[in-house]
Amino acid sequence: MATSEPSSDSLQAEFLKNNAQFAADFPDGNLPMPPARHALVLACMDARLHVEKVLGIKNGACHCVRNAGGRASDDALRSIAISQRLLGTKEVHIVHHTDCGMLTFTNEQLASKIKEDLGVDVGDRDFLPFANLEKSVLDDIRTVSESPFVAPGTQVHGYIYEVETGKLRVVG
Amino acid sequence: MATSEPSSDSLQAEFLKNNAQFAADFPDGNLPMPPARHALVLACMDARLHVEKVLGIKNGACHCVRNAGGRASDDALRSIAISQRLLGTKEVHIVHHTDCGMLTFTNEQLASKIKEDLGVDVGDRDFLPFANLEKSVLDDIRTVSESPFVAPGTQVHGYIYEVETGKLRVVG
Repeated sequence: MATSEPSSDSLQAEFLKNNAQFAADFPDGNLPMPPARHALVLACMDARLHVEKVLGIKNGACHCVRNAGGRASDDALRSIAISQRLLGTKEVHIVHHTDCGMLTFTNEQLASKIKEDLGVDVGDRDFLPFANLEKSVLDDIRTVSESPFVAPGTQVHGYIYEVETGKLRVVG
Repeated sequence: MATSEPSSDSLQAEFLKNNAQFAADFPDGNLPMPPARHALVLACMDARLHVEKVLGIKNGACHCVRNAGGRASDDALRSIAISQRLLGTKEVHIVHHTDCGMLTFTNEQLASKIKEDLGVDVGDRDFLPFANLEKSVLDDIRTVSESPFVAPGTQVHGYIYEVETGKLRVVG
């Protein structure tokens, strides 16, 4: 068994071993680049949210953008613009989740911690935390819908995933 | 069978149906928020790259950040900072892939297309395309390693995933 704090080398070795098994029986070598279902999912980076499994997404079906919180950040809008303009996606599904780390801090608290731990002054940088889960989904639906980079009329759906139950519920 | 261009409503209905099956037998309701393997994966949004499956990542094991290209964008660094400072991750694994859309355009071409399709002038916005796959991985390893938001000494690993074969190869 691995020790309780496995080294980075051991995780890389694990990934490569797992991947060798995955690639040994690989049926999907001819999938095209554009997502088959013309959709993009924007979700949190949380380790308990395996997006394709939770939503039952098939290989090649949907783009998947993830970041801390599943927020409609400027960079998420960059990804959505590329997805829509070059690869034909037409709808966005936003997934936040219960017990999210973004509910546990303020910008000021994180700035203090970065200053304390790394000696770096982040100024007034917004790390996009939120205090209300439903509101964060609704805010991000609006941000995507109103972005000039996103095609007018794009359908934007919102969800909260419950890490305690595995259930997805619709928001908005 | 669905028509060739399923409506957005039908995709949402599919997600909810798939999720009901997923949640019907859900064993992981008590996983803690911090990733068990103290690691974060940064990968492309490509629809053919189901990160957890390709790397064999267990539920709760690793944060997963994804964007167009799997780039070390400012927003990816935001996510890494939150992951490291608040949730204890200590290493980063960057995954780009063959046949990536980011190899197919320049900023000027995308800016022209956005202007043509949406009537919006994006100015000199950088959409982070790249012309060389190995170099893009190496560039992003360096960007993460040198970021003041990232803990000094963080191990940063790079990979290219082959969408044609399912195989992962190490870069750098």
